[in-house]
Amino acid sequence: MATPVAQLAVSTVIFSLRAGSTLWLPLVRRIREPFEGQWALPGGPLGANESLADSAARTLQQTTGLTPRYLEQLYAFGTVDRSPSQRVVSVVYWALVRPDEAEQATEGENVRWFSADELPELAFDHNTIVEYALWRLRNKMEYSRIAHAFLGERFTLAQLREVYEAVLRRPLDPANFRRQIEAGQSIVATDEYLAGGRHRPPRLYRTNESIDLAENGPLPEQGAPHALR
Amino acid sequence: MATPVAQLAVSTVIFSLRAGSTLWLPLVRRIREPFEGQWALPGGPLGANESLADSAARTLQQTTGLTPRYLEQLYAFGTVDRSPSQRVVSVVYWALVRPDEAEQATEGENVRWFSADELPELAFDHNTIVEYALWRLRNKMEYSRIAHAFLGERFTLAQLREVYEAVLRRPLDPANFRRQIEAGQSIVATDEYLAGGRHRPPRLYRTNESIDLAENGPLPEQGAPHALR
Repeated sequence: MATPVAQLAVSTVIFSLRAGSTLWLPLVRRIREPFEGQWALPGGPLGANESLADSAARTLQQTTGLTPRYLEQLYAFGTVDRSPSQRVVSVVYWALVRPDEAEQATEGENVRWFSADELPELAFDHNTIVEYALWRLRNKMEYSRIAHAFLGERFTLAQLREVYEAVLRRPLDPANFRRQIEAGQSIVATDEYLAGGRHRPPRLYRTNESIDLAENGPLPEQGAPHALR
Repeated sequence: MATPVAQLAVSTVIFSLRAGSTLWLPLVRRIREPFEGQWALPGGPLGANESLADSAARTLQQTTGLTPRYLEQLYAFGTVDRSPSQRVVSVVYWALVRPDEAEQATEGENVRWFSADELPELAFDHNTIVEYALWRLRNKMEYSRIAHAFLGERFTLAQLREVYEAVLRRPLDPANFRRQIEAGQSIVATDEYLAGGRHRPPRLYRTNESIDLAENGPLPEQGAPHALR
């Protein structure tokens, strides 16, 4: 075989909503050159016996202790000079985790969560990668039910709106939001109401499971981790 | 550096409309093992000094003589056993070319165009890759102006509808189609009409250029080839 011209790495952008209304992601401090001491996306070289998606799931597990419900391939980054010493092509995945999952995430010595809006200068081209992931997330909110990946099995319309507001970074009119969401088919009203002492507790909704959450299409063996199947 | 566990290849799915109303793609006959004699997607190992997108554009040029207006990354395929002899991770791009461009495409001894609906058994997992590309194309027709990549600068509503019918593989009601398209903002009516001796020649439309054709988002240097910028 020809000598490979590049090392293959898999990195993962892990988004969650923390403090209710801000997008956060965990980063890992690099403990060796290049970029020693700087923060970077979790990831590493592709293992010999793992698929790309398995590698991303392993990274997520090692960094946060979590198993993602939403894990999807984002993009392969492969400009010639993106790593100073040797050429590296990174296949990047993105994972979305619910706030209650994120609260349970383990946080090692060299792992810290950052607000997506206040990132330091990251190693390699990782700022560009996060920017691209944010762009895709915002874009995808417009035509898919990706927002649901941040919610539990039951949620109110106000909770769903808060997810949209956090990701799109602007307030949304509650009445317009209700009309638009109800016109779509992404959620289904349940007979349940939010627990609490209110006079008129808000109705709970659930996700319409007939629409796929991650858009893997006809890729059976290509493989998201088992949690996603 | 650690020894890379996989070879990196770039392949390209090149769709065009031929014979008016069917999706076609060019394939290359393999002249060496594995899969010698079978048809495969055009592509090859990533060159040392080219980005992923440059590699895809080069492949397209070598296979068809064409420079694509629409070239976008599709997906990275990396299951462990997708190549029999050594592990190969393929970053796959897709290109869409207009029928008039496809007619000018060169066709070498080992290059042949096939109907997307009548493919032979391809090398590696290339049938799966084409199936995934078709799924993405059909999916994307629903929410983007990707269909325009198959059309010239001026087109009638009937010509646009024919593109949708070819990709979606079903007839569309002309009146409904007109209403839906006019409700969107993807096309702009011109003051021109289709040339010809008809009593009421159909109006010509053009693409709304304020909407990006390829969705590369904030990826300036990541790079589509120059033709796309």
